[in-house]
Amino acid sequence: MLLAKVTGSLVSTQKVGSMTGHKLLLVEPFRVDLEHGCLAGSGRSLVAVDTVGAGEGEYVLLPQGSSARLTPGTKNLPVDTVVVGIIDSVHVEHRCVYEKTD
Amino acid sequence: MLLAKVTGSLVSTQKVGSMTGHKLLLVEPFRVDLEHGCLAGSGRSLVAVDTVGAGEGEYVLLPQGSSARLTPGTKNLPVDTVVVGIIDSVHVEHRCVYEKTD
Amino acid sequence: MLLAKVTGSLVSTQKVGSMTGHKLLLVEPFRVDLEHGCLAGSGRSLVAVDTVGAGEGEYVLLPQGSSARLTPGTKNLPVDTVVVGIIDSVHVEHRCVYEKTD
Amino acid sequence: MLLAKVTGSLVSTQKVGSMTGHKLLLVEPFRVDLEHGCLAGSGRSLVAVDTVGAGEGEYVLLPQGSSARLTPGTKNLPVDTVVVGIIDSVHVEHRCVYEKTD
Amino acid sequence: MLLAKVTGSLVSTQKVGSMTGHKLLLVEPFRVDLEHGCLAGSGRSLVAVDTVGAGEGEYVLLPQGSSARLTPGTKNLPVDTVVVGIIDSVHVEHRCVYEKTD
Repeated sequence: MLLAKVTGSLVSTQKVGSMTGHKLLLVEPFRVDLEHGCLAGSGRSLVAVDTVGAGEGEYVLLPQGSSARLTPGTKNLPVDTVVVGIIDSVHVEHRCVYEKTD
Repeated sequence: MLLAKVTGSLVSTQKVGSMTGHKLLLVEPFRVDLEHGCLAGSGRSLVAVDTVGAGEGEYVLLPQGSSARLTPGTKNLPVDTVVVGIIDSVHVEHRCVYEKTD
Repeated sequence: MLLAKVTGSLVSTQKVGSMTGHKLLLVEPFRVDLEHGCLAGSGRSLVAVDTVGAGEGEYVLLPQGSSARLTPGTKNLPVDTVVVGIIDSVHVEHRCVYEKTD
Repeated sequence: MLLAKVTGSLVSTQKVGSMTGHKLLLVEPFRVDLEHGCLAGSGRSLVAVDTVGAGEGEYVLLPQGSSARLTPGTKNLPVDTVVVGIIDSVHVEHRCVYEKTD
Repeated sequence: MLLAKVTGSLVSTQKVGSMTGHKLLLVEPFRVDLEHGCLAGSGRSLVAVDTVGAGEGEYVLLPQGSSARLTPGTKNLPVDTVVVGIIDSVHVEHRCVYEKTD
């Protein structure tokens, strides 16, 4: 899965019927920058269906491909990217490189 | 899914039988350019089957892989990229970086 | 799908039994170069099973992944890239950037 | 599959129900550096479900896509990356470029 | 599929049960270098299950994704990359850019 940040949202009115009612999030894949001990953006953009109530600025767990259809809310949808979890913390080499703040 | 712009179309006469009657669009994946607050092209080209009547210049929602076969019009087709929605607007960090104009 | 050019062919004698009798083409993914109004090569190489009688120099439609198995000739084959159509023409922004010549 | 190094771990409390109880590892894809005869990091980050008790610093075997759901512990999970083996050694051109030490 | 060269092998003792007895090869994707009329390495590394007895130095045919599970030896395995054929020769623009020697 990708580790990604929710950066925004999209609106699409004219779409395949089964997509109605699904919130579309704009997400950016991130990576761990070991040198600086932080998460670093990739500059890339993906569109994901939200299934856990993720909000802008949160880091999320992002499976792609057919696995994106294996949540209760995305079965049989024509989607290949979905948010399945909100990340609380990331630890690398015994250091905390990210911790969610409320 | 990818956020992509419809840039053109293709014609293919000699093809697998099940592909007959499906409109082929040329699309370019885009990303959000946070610095300039706009959408930016990738220069890459993909071919997608249209299922929502998307036209040249419009931004669309583009699932790939097996998920591309989960629309009423693409079931069992040998296609891995399909347009499932036309994007009306994209919001990032409380700014509108794209809004469709008629 | 990718838009690709058939650049050559491969021979493989020692292979999985179900692959016998399938023509293997060497293909190069292309993209549209909007500035020069032409198709431009990527330099990448892929191997595809031919299902439409495509010849060297022709531009073809190239689905990947599980969708490559959804043609009459590739069902249940261990292949992830297949030629499903020969491209006649490509139009971008009301210009013809490619037209097949006989 | 990718050859990857386990670099850390993630915690996610708010997630899809079926993900509960699965350990999430942060992994970095590696490649063989033939010139220096060693494994070299890519700088990329992926999140994988652990199925073999892999620990930080170990090199692992990492299938992606639908294949990630074909282990006893990941059936029907919305995950596309899983650790299926811990690598003991890597040999290239009759040289050992990696050997696990206890 | 990718055209790849077998560059080495891996040993993994602690792994998912169904993986036992399958030979793991280290492979490097290659591309055709049209300018020099030869095959050129990518520097990338993948791990593949061997199904045809491929040896170090040989060029092979490498499907990825779910298609990797469609050989008699890899059904239901958690693998996404498999060797399904050994390449005898590659021809590009009426030139032979590779021919296997015994």
